[in-house]
Amino acid sequence: MSQAIFNNIRIVLCQTSHPGNIGSAARAIKTMGLQHLYLVKPDKFPDAHATALATGAADLLESAIVTETLSEALTGCAFAVGLSARKRYLSHETVNAREAALQASKIAASQPVAFVFGTEMSGLSNAELDCCQLLAMIPANPEYSSLNLAAAVQVVCYELRMAILEGKLDAPGGMELATNDELERFYAHLEQTLIDIGYLNPKAPKKLSERLRRIYARARLEKEEVNLLRGVLTLTQEPRKHTKY
Amino acid sequence: MSQAIFNNIRIVLCQTSHPGNIGSAARAIKTMGLQHLYLVKPDKFPDAHATALATGAADLLESAIVTETLSEALTGCAFAVGLSARKRYLSHETVNAREAALQASKIAASQPVAFVFGTEMSGLSNAELDCCQLLAMIPANPEYSSLNLAAAVQVVCYELRMAILEGKLDAPGGMELATNDELERFYAHLEQTLIDIGYLNPKAPKKLSERLRRIYARARLEKEEVNLLRGVLTLTQEPRKHTKY
Repeated sequence: MSQAIFNNIRIVLCQTSHPGNIGSAARAIKTMGLQHLYLVKPDKFPDAHATALATGAADLLESAIVTETLSEALTGCAFAVGLSARKRYLSHETVNAREAALQASKIAASQPVAFVFGTEMSGLSNAELDCCQLLAMIPANPEYSSLNLAAAVQVVCYELRMAILEGKLDAPGGMELATNDELERFYAHLEQTLIDIGYLNPKAPKKLSERLRRIYARARLEKEEVNLLRGVLTLTQEPRKHTKY
Repeated sequence: MSQAIFNNIRIVLCQTSHPGNIGSAARAIKTMGLQHLYLVKPDKFPDAHATALATGAADLLESAIVTETLSEALTGCAFAVGLSARKRYLSHETVNAREAALQASKIAASQPVAFVFGTEMSGLSNAELDCCQLLAMIPANPEYSSLNLAAAVQVVCYELRMAILEGKLDAPGGMELATNDELERFYAHLEQTLIDIGYLNPKAPKKLSERLRRIYARARLEKEEVNLLRGVLTLTQEPRKHTKY
């Protein structure tokens, strides 16, 4: 299901000057599970430098579609988002990259969408912006907002992946957590040990015990970890049993 | 106000091989309004290639702090997040980059925090991971998860910026967290105590120590809690000093 959404998203790079940026962008795109790269009038392509920087994403360069115009690259798209480094167009609706990714991923559930990136030096032209339905900005440092092209592609593809997968990590490898009664037995063992070593006054153990419980509660102990900690407690008690009691 | 939070965040790159990646990372960091770059044993630094790729962020390279060890770079930090490309540590708490940025930005409202990146080839070593309280992953394509180092830095710094500028940052839970060096002294004390009671074999302490560190890393110990635990350790050691040694 989510694979179909990824498959409906195009990344379009317009008139890119440096082939290295095309390669780095391909790598960024593939790491986020996207695959469709469109190049509108690239300065140099194909190019060895692009392939070198793409590393394991060279397949995206091989299947990239090169066009003469942006509108060719957008053929069949239901929604195109233009990336802009600054708020240029009062008349264009402008949102941040996260919001744009959310909107686009919803549409991509059923129809192709595109994210359009301009040149390294000057971004998208007015004519190119007019092919887009929405402008998106990456909220950057106002004093230095110059993201590298591939870095901007990385952030946008990352937001698309987060929107599609809702940020899920793979199921956690899952050690079993200790049960409540195992924890209680551990706490009792801990308390007894602290009494044995003279740290706790058995007549007023309350406050300190609680503070220690809080530490271990926050750690969300696994079964094995409880065993390990109880092993420490047992050895802590032992010499006293032999030498003092 | 938010400037103070940005100012409390360090980006730490461990044993980076390619100086170009250091430059690109500096650019990524500055575009997101961060400024503190730490380099642990970089292969080549300073380097003309780093400066070239940093473009307008060369000032971050000039003020970068170079250290011999990760723990030096983390001096004074209350919270360190290690970036991992894959789920290596079942027992390390692992969250996605967004969640890590949210947690870290809350702590950075009052104390220094760090995001730690490993080498291009193999990421963070086990010893480096053990200096971190939390692992973060960028949810990537499982079939090709190899983000370029600077691209990973870009995504993390972007999430930090989003968290800081959007976040309703609640006042942190109140108590001051222990710093990295306080934690290291606690771990050393713990290890010595375990050797004293015969739980650890000083010739092969590694595995058990690591498992215990992870428990306390997950708990995010406060300063006072470290004092409390060290009080327990001191008393655990004492009778042996008197009776056995």
